[in-house]
Parts: sequence; C-alpha cells; structure tokens
Amino acid sequence: MEVLRVSGTSRPNAIAGAVAALLRSQGQVDIQAIGPTAVNQTVKALAIARGYLHGDALDLYTQPEFVKLDVQQEERTAVRFHVRAVPLPQV
Amino acid sequence: MEVLRVSGTSRPNAIAGAVAALLRSQGQVDIQAIGPTAVNQTVKALAIARGYLHGDALDLYTQPEFVKLDVQQEERTAVRFHVRAVPLPQV
Repeated sequence: MEVLRVSGTSRPNAIAGAVAALLRSQGQVDIQAIGPTAVNQTVKALAIARGYLHGDALDLYTQPEFVKLDVQQEERTAVRFHVRAVPLPQV
Repeated sequence: MEVLRVSGTSRPNAIAGAVAALLRSQGQVDIQAIGPTAVNQTVKALAIARGYLHGDALDLYTQPEFVKLDVQQEERTAVRFHVRAVPLPQV
C-alpha cells in the first residue's frame, strides 16, 4: 500500500489531492505524520479530500494508530492513518 | 448524539476513556476540536481508544469535517470527528 509522509509544512490541499487520487485508484492509502502540526495538516487534508471524492460518489474513513519509527537513530512516535474509500451513502 | 468538546489542554487518555465508553453504549460519538493542538489531542485519544475497545471485540473509525462555529461573536473553524464503533475483524 502507498504510504504518504506528511510534515508540518505540507499543504493540506496538496495532500488532499494525492489522497483522493490514491483512493480513487487503489481504494486505500496510509498517511504517516510525525508531530502535532503534521497530524493537524493530515486531518485537514482528510476533511478536504472528502469534498474532492463526493463527485465520484465516494467518501473516506480513517483509523489512526501509533507507530514507532527510528529517525536519525532516535525513536520517534508517529501517527499512522489508515484511510479507506467507501461508497457515498445514497440520499 | 453526544458531542465531546476537546481543547488543547484535554488529556488524551481521559478523552479516550470517554470515547470508548460512549462507543460501547451508543455506538457513535462526535468530537469537536478547535485549533491544531486540540486536533492532535483528539487523534491521539482515538488511537488510544482503539486499544481500550479491543477487549470488547470493537474497533472505531472516524470521518473528519470542518464546521463553522461562533465563539464569542467571532467565526471560528473547528474540526468535527464523526466516530463510529465497528466489530473488530476476527483473526
């Protein structure tokens, strides 16, 4: 599965576009964020991506979990968001 | 539906306990967070709550969206997390 890495300086609209494209083509994507700012940018991106997907009759949901990473020989805790596409409920 | 309001000073473990209890009893809960720190605390709480629910053979997923709020006569954008309980997949 594709893993997008989000930093605190990533633009939510750009992440949202990548997430929507991957959900359309593959149905799922993982996003990895280290630090509070990156986590916030990821959540904003997911809220925006939901809007992008509505035209395709799709929505998304996510499940966050903690993962341990080695970054420059230091252990860091990241948040990994498992994201999956689902059909948009019919109105 | 119950709406939990999370601030930047909310403790993730406490939020996680409340979320897990509401998901066990009601199957869903909304969480509202204003500001990057509150959003980060909410995501941490959801990751922790997933662990709390595993003993009940439950998991959770969430869908974030932006909402406009009036806070002291100023318009603020909050993130609202719709959270739903799902059965834990059998291994």
